[in-house]
Order: sequence, then C-alpha cells, then structure tokens
Amino acid sequence: MALTFEHWNPETAERFKKFVPTKGIDGFLGIRIDDVAPGRLVASFEVSDEMITMIGNMHGGCLSAFCDHVLGVVLYPVMPEGSWAATTEFKINLLKPVSGGTCTATAEVISMTRTTAVIRIDIANGDRLAAVAQGTCLIMAPKS
Amino acid sequence: MALTFEHWNPETAERFKKFVPTKGIDGFLGIRIDDVAPGRLVASFEVSDEMITMIGNMHGGCLSAFCDHVLGVVLYPVMPEGSWAATTEFKINLLKPVSGGTCTATAEVISMTRTTAVIRIDIANGDRLAAVAQGTCLIMAPKS
Amino acid sequence: MALTFEHWNPETAERFKKFVPTKGIDGFLGIRIDDVAPGRLVASFEVSDEMITMIGNMHGGCLSAFCDHVLGVVLYPVMPEGSWAATTEFKINLLKPVSGGTCTATAEVISMTRTTAVIRIDIANGDRLAAVAQGTCLIMAPKS
Amino acid sequence: MALTFEHWNPETAERFKKFVPTKGIDGFLGIRIDDVAPGRLVASFEVSDEMITMIGNMHGGCLSAFCDHVLGVVLYPVMPEGSWAATTEFKINLLKPVSGGTCTATAEVISMTRTTAVIRIDIANGDRLAAVAQGTCLIMAPKS
Repeated sequence: MALTFEHWNPETAERFKKFVPTKGIDGFLGIRIDDVAPGRLVASFEVSDEMITMIGNMHGGCLSAFCDHVLGVVLYPVMPEGSWAATTEFKINLLKPVSGGTCTATAEVISMTRTTAVIRIDIANGDRLAAVAQGTCLIMAPKS
Repeated sequence: MALTFEHWNPETAERFKKFVPTKGIDGFLGIRIDDVAPGRLVASFEVSDEMITMIGNMHGGCLSAFCDHVLGVVLYPVMPEGSWAATTEFKINLLKPVSGGTCTATAEVISMTRTTAVIRIDIANGDRLAAVAQGTCLIMAPKS
Repeated sequence: MALTFEHWNPETAERFKKFVPTKGIDGFLGIRIDDVAPGRLVASFEVSDEMITMIGNMHGGCLSAFCDHVLGVVLYPVMPEGSWAATTEFKINLLKPVSGGTCTATAEVISMTRTTAVIRIDIANGDRLAAVAQGTCLIMAPKS
Repeated sequence: MALTFEHWNPETAERFKKFVPTKGIDGFLGIRIDDVAPGRLVASFEVSDEMITMIGNMHGGCLSAFCDHVLGVVLYPVMPEGSWAATTEFKINLLKPVSGGTCTATAEVISMTRTTAVIRIDIANGDRLAAVAQGTCLIMAPKS
C-alpha cells in the first residue's frame, strides 16, 4: 500500500543531506540526513560519551528527540514549497539499551492529507532495533 | 485513587533537588528537580536560544527528551535502594508551540508494581499546557 | 489549568444521560452516560459473562472500545451545534485485569481548538484504576 | 531485521484458523484468523450494519478492540505451551473512516523477550490503510 505524493522537491532533499547542524538538539545529537526519497528518510547519529548516563547506557531522551526530529524532516520534501510541519503527537517503544555505535532511523510516511500526516519510524543500533515509533505531524500551508 | 508507596527515600529526593547536570541531554536542557514527593516530581528548564529552530519555536524533541527524563527520575525515591528504572515506552501530545520562558513538568506515578510503573506527565509553559504524556518504566531490582 | 469552553449545550448533555444504546459496540458493552459537565464526562458499563475470555478476564478490547467511545462523546456538548467529532488517535495503558463489577470512565478535555481536542481518560474498576488513556479527536464543523 | 522465534506451534496456528468466535467482543466483531506464521498473523472481520453509528461510519472502537485482540493472538503460536499473553498498552492512529467491506489486520512481532513483546499492526479496508497500531504484551509463563 505504498503512497504516491503530489509534491516532491529533490532540491530540499539534497539540501538536507548536506546540512550539518551546529546548534539545537539536532546539533547536540549530531544528526545527519543520510538518504531521502519521497515519503522516506534515513538519518543517523553517533552515540557519544556525552550521551551516556551514570547507569552506562545512552539517555532514552536522545532517541525520543531523534524521533521528533525525523518525524518533521521526512515531510518537507513532499510538502508544497513554504509549508511547515509540526509534530503533534507520537509514541515510542524503547526495545533495547544503547551503549555505543550508530543510531539509524528510517522514517516512512504511512498516510498523508493536505493538513496532516502519520509517520512510522524504526531506529536501529548495531544489528537490532533500538526503538520503534509512530506519530502525527500537522502540515501548515505557506502564508500567502 | 492516590497510591501509597512501600518505599520512600527522602535522601534521594534531596540529592535530586541539589543536582546540577553538566553533561548529557539533561545537561543540554539544564533540567532542575524542583520538588519531589512520594510518587510525584516537579522539574523544569529554561528555554534557551540554543533550543529554538529556524521556524522560531523550540524543537519538540526538547519536550520529549524532558519527558523521558522525568519518567525515570520520579521513580528513584520510591524504589528499593539500588534499583534502577528504564523507560520502555511513552506517548506525548504536543499542545502548543513553545518559544521561550520556563517548561515545568509535573510527573505522577499512576500505577506501580515490583517490576513496572505507569506515569503521567503534564508540561506547562506560561499559563498553558505545552504537552501531556503517559508512559511505562521497567523497574530493575538491585543486583544482590 | 482548567479550560473554559466557548460552547456548552446542556440539552445535549441531558440527552446523552438518558440514551440507552441498543446496537453497536456501545450497545454490546451497554455504556451509560452517568454525568456530563463542560469538558468532563463520566460513563460506565457492567462487566458481563459475555465479555469474559477463556482466561477468565474481560477482553481488553472492551476497555479500548470504551475509550474510543467516550473520547468523542465528551466533546459533543462543548462543540458548536451540528459539529461532529472523530477519534484520530489514542494510547491506552491497561493497568490490571478486570473480571467483573463496573468499569467507570472519567474523560477530561485537556486542550481544545476549533479543529482538534486532546482528552485524557481514567477507567476505574472497583477501588483501582483499570486503564488510563490519552487521545486526540478531530472536530468537524457543521456543513453550512 | 526479521526475528527468529525459539518456539513455534503449528497446531495452535491451525486451531486459531478454524476457530469461530460465538461470544465476546471477537464474537461481536466476527473475527476470523486468516493466516498465521511465526511472529505474523492476518485476521479480518466484515463490517456489519450493527457496527455503523448515526454518523454513517463504523464505530472506531471496533478497530481498537480488533487491535487489542490480534496483539495477543499473534503471540500464542510462538510462546511456550501453556503461557498466556496480555496486552499492557497500545497506541492506534485511525487513518480514514470505514463504512463497509472487510477490515484486515496484519500483526507483526517486532521484538520479543521471555516476558514481553512489542507488536505492530496494519489494518486495511479496501485499498487503503484504515489504522496503524503499536503495542506491548506481557507474556506469562505457564504455572508449573
């Protein structure tokens, strides 16, 4: 049941892939956009010592912030130019502790209307899933 | 339907209230623990320019990471000494954009067994709710 | 942080309290609306043998269907006449097995705009919470 | 990242496929188990007039009850004989109104330990997704 998208902006996709965040929570995590296709996005970050808690595992908040980030980003290349996307809700299941390596999220748009989209996310770490999520973004049309 | 808790460690509560995080995602956000009671915790952070995205609002990931953090922290003072808590899942609804001021989370333990707890969180910003969340932590007994 | 509501229709509230469902999933469960106030609703049903599975407990689906039902119903008395509400998403935590007695849901509107509302639900059974939920309804304006 | 399962009971799978529910919420919906493989299950029900509300669409509670049902059922053939599974939480996004035809759920076990499993569900109606869900079951070992 693959979706087709009315809009597709490859320039936005290319710009995202070259973007290096220097501030914000995406800068803190060092999120890179690895791959972008219509309704699909792969992003990743390296687990750093900075993210490890006293217990010896990465703070779960890194994965939920990562989810919130890719939830919105996956939509930009398939929205009309000038629109913006805001996460309104999501749910995450944390499946295993993460203590190092790379976290790679694959986000997929499951459903999309003019005003709203539902997205699913898989986050892998090593050869296992570290988290799965499902959420909704609101799409705001460009101000005319 | 208020819960009663078998364990209550006021020293842990006091230690949390004095803790100033210098690293990690709690350090990035600058989370302070304002108040701790059995099964209840109030925590807050100041929105900084660093957290604001190009769109002019705080990155939603700050609120979801904040949720993941308080979900675990609220449990420590009511768990047997040496136990630890790990978020296994949560769901968050983002209710309004945040662009400055203080974000204050109130976490409440709704249900607790020896191995698991369900917690609800309200996050206020100014005079309105910015987010509400509901999630589960796994409780791991101390290694003997 | 109690909400105030622009609309309040006490006739709708009274009609709901007198309504006896004879078909549908609300008829299957026998849901009664016990109390309605602006942004708040109490509803209940009696656990019947019909709802008990082989394992000896009530099928969890009864509680999730109950949630979906009250999520929408709580909004009608506070929406403009002729509007309708549709659940778009919710999340439920099942806190204890239910094997008999009454299930009583208290639903509270946490946030409401012209087009959307976020609602929280507590479901009690005996002297304990059986489930807690949090979800979103879409509000559709009356066709003019 | 396909899972492998320690247990697989084809007799349980065959029994489920022949089962015709006559009571309970699965009887109300008329759920049939169409196909079972290790960690994967397809189930369906026909939308009946009985399930349609005044608004002309199927009550959303039918889909959430359906989810709760398949969440547990998908686990039985991959659990040790005599174990049982109980849904502890799930989240559902309702993607389009349903007014007739067949609802078909595909459930997939995403993660499984000795005591817990995370499952994802897609529910199709006609050529579109009607709902997507994600949830957790607790696995209880057989009493020895």
